[in-house]
Amino acid sequence: MSEKYAVGVDLGGTNVRYGIVSKGGKTTFERSRPVEGNRTPAKIIDILTDIAREAKTRANISGIGIGAPGIVDFDAGSVIRSPHYPSWRDFELRALLAKRTGLPVVLDNDANMIAYGEAGYGAGKGLKNFVMITLGTGIGGGIVIDGKVFHGDHGFAGELGHQVIFFDGAHCDCGGRGCWETMVSIEGIRQISGLDPKALFDMAANGDRRAFAAWQKFGEYFGAGVASLANVLGIFNFVIGGGIGNALKFFLGPAKKEITRRTFGETAKRLNLIPAGLGDMAGIMGSARMALYGKK
Amino acid sequence: MSEKYAVGVDLGGTNVRYGIVSKGGKTTFERSRPVEGNRTPAKIIDILTDIAREAKTRANISGIGIGAPGIVDFDAGSVIRSPHYPSWRDFELRALLAKRTGLPVVLDNDANMIAYGEAGYGAGKGLKNFVMITLGTGIGGGIVIDGKVFHGDHGFAGELGHQVIFFDGAHCDCGGRGCWETMVSIEGIRQISGLDPKALFDMAANGDRRAFAAWQKFGEYFGAGVASLANVLGIFNFVIGGGIGNALKFFLGPAKKEITRRTFGETAKRLNLIPAGLGDMAGIMGSARMALYGKK
Repeated sequence: MSEKYAVGVDLGGTNVRYGIVSKGGKTTFERSRPVEGNRTPAKIIDILTDIAREAKTRANISGIGIGAPGIVDFDAGSVIRSPHYPSWRDFELRALLAKRTGLPVVLDNDANMIAYGEAGYGAGKGLKNFVMITLGTGIGGGIVIDGKVFHGDHGFAGELGHQVIFFDGAHCDCGGRGCWETMVSIEGIRQISGLDPKALFDMAANGDRRAFAAWQKFGEYFGAGVASLANVLGIFNFVIGGGIGNALKFFLGPAKKEITRRTFGETAKRLNLIPAGLGDMAGIMGSARMALYGKK
Repeated sequence: MSEKYAVGVDLGGTNVRYGIVSKGGKTTFERSRPVEGNRTPAKIIDILTDIAREAKTRANISGIGIGAPGIVDFDAGSVIRSPHYPSWRDFELRALLAKRTGLPVVLDNDANMIAYGEAGYGAGKGLKNFVMITLGTGIGGGIVIDGKVFHGDHGFAGELGHQVIFFDGAHCDCGGRGCWETMVSIEGIRQISGLDPKALFDMAANGDRRAFAAWQKFGEYFGAGVASLANVLGIFNFVIGGGIGNALKFFLGPAKKEITRRTFGETAKRLNLIPAGLGDMAGIMGSARMALYGKK
């Protein structure tokens, strides 16, 4: 008997990244394809079908997992809409791809797939409950309860970036204002410091005081949101990933101080901020894992 | 065979309210006792033991459920601390009472018991997931997932009043600032209008424009917090109770407008604000129900 494998797909705005992953979490093959000019549902299904065909020539593939950006109806297996793919409306990706490939397909929001990857193979391994926070252009969120991704009523759970932290704050892409990700994001760092995260990271690494002050402010905003989530969810483990997550050491201290201020002592002393373990492979590995270990 | 009953206890700051409740949700006996001067753990156990004895003379009692104010460690069956009972520190109420009465005891936070009561016998009946919001001095919260109260890692989940909505807002009793309940509470209504909720309710009932404007502001604050919870949890049903909940008709409109502004369209169109069904009996009924239907 050969080991079981699945294809994990991380469907980004400009590239489709994918890999072949074993049940034990070993990635044996990894590639990327551009999607430029092939953004319609039909073209995307063509690309994904060809990826499945390619994978089948290399391993004993038992399923495909797709992490897609945007609002995913997990139960229906469809992408309701996606900011990166404006032509998608209730795109029934799961059923269409299963029909074309003859393989079982699972579809979830990309941030949920990252959470599920970290749950099985990364920093969330062994944790019953945790919250995954991916810091980048916006905030990707996933709530893991009893080792499974919590989907809420229709699969939209985990839009952590759109918790309201600044009631009268800046306008957000979602149409609201003062959402957490207006300040806790690349754009938020620009607002705070006038710089991009990479530049601010390098300055802090070189001991620049102004950069420390900016990361401190960022840490306070970040910490207020984590405190809010800890109070609501009673979950004490937070796994932090994404590009900005790499700067955790610069904002961990101020974040912890803010969390202590804004939670009950019983929560504050138990709360852990844990660096993600899988880097940019989390989405591929989580998607494959969901295909291998069942829908949830 | 006689029907099974449990004692449900709603342990307040000044009174212990209790009742005998059948599996079907019928309350056959209801009483209240003052706790003045009897606030130590030992005295409270005496009172609860006597309540159990009284109940046993009246029905076939199979267990006791206690809803307690404060921070409850659900797994341990203890009250870590309670603002109403300053002498309580890791008070192992569940084990002590079970030993004294010879009956199974379940212990949970009072707001969680209210949620569990509404889940079985009230406005949450038949809902897979919902969020219970009890509006009063503060905000009591309970998150029901798959028909059960979600406890998080140690039982502190559902502190909805301490989600951060106003980053730089007013100081909160919890030590933080800008918590939701600083504005969405009796004190919040005083801040908004200079009046108590009852007076503001009566003025609005009489068509007073200034009162409408105050309820509108309150509805916006309330709606922002509901939107935040809907974005994080992906849960679409919210059951609203508590004294201020009775004024829902005055702030429902502005709240819905605010929720629509602050959530994705897919969420906004599915979101329901549902008036609670059990009034001030929810705590007693939920506590009894948890004793009858198992720990969770």
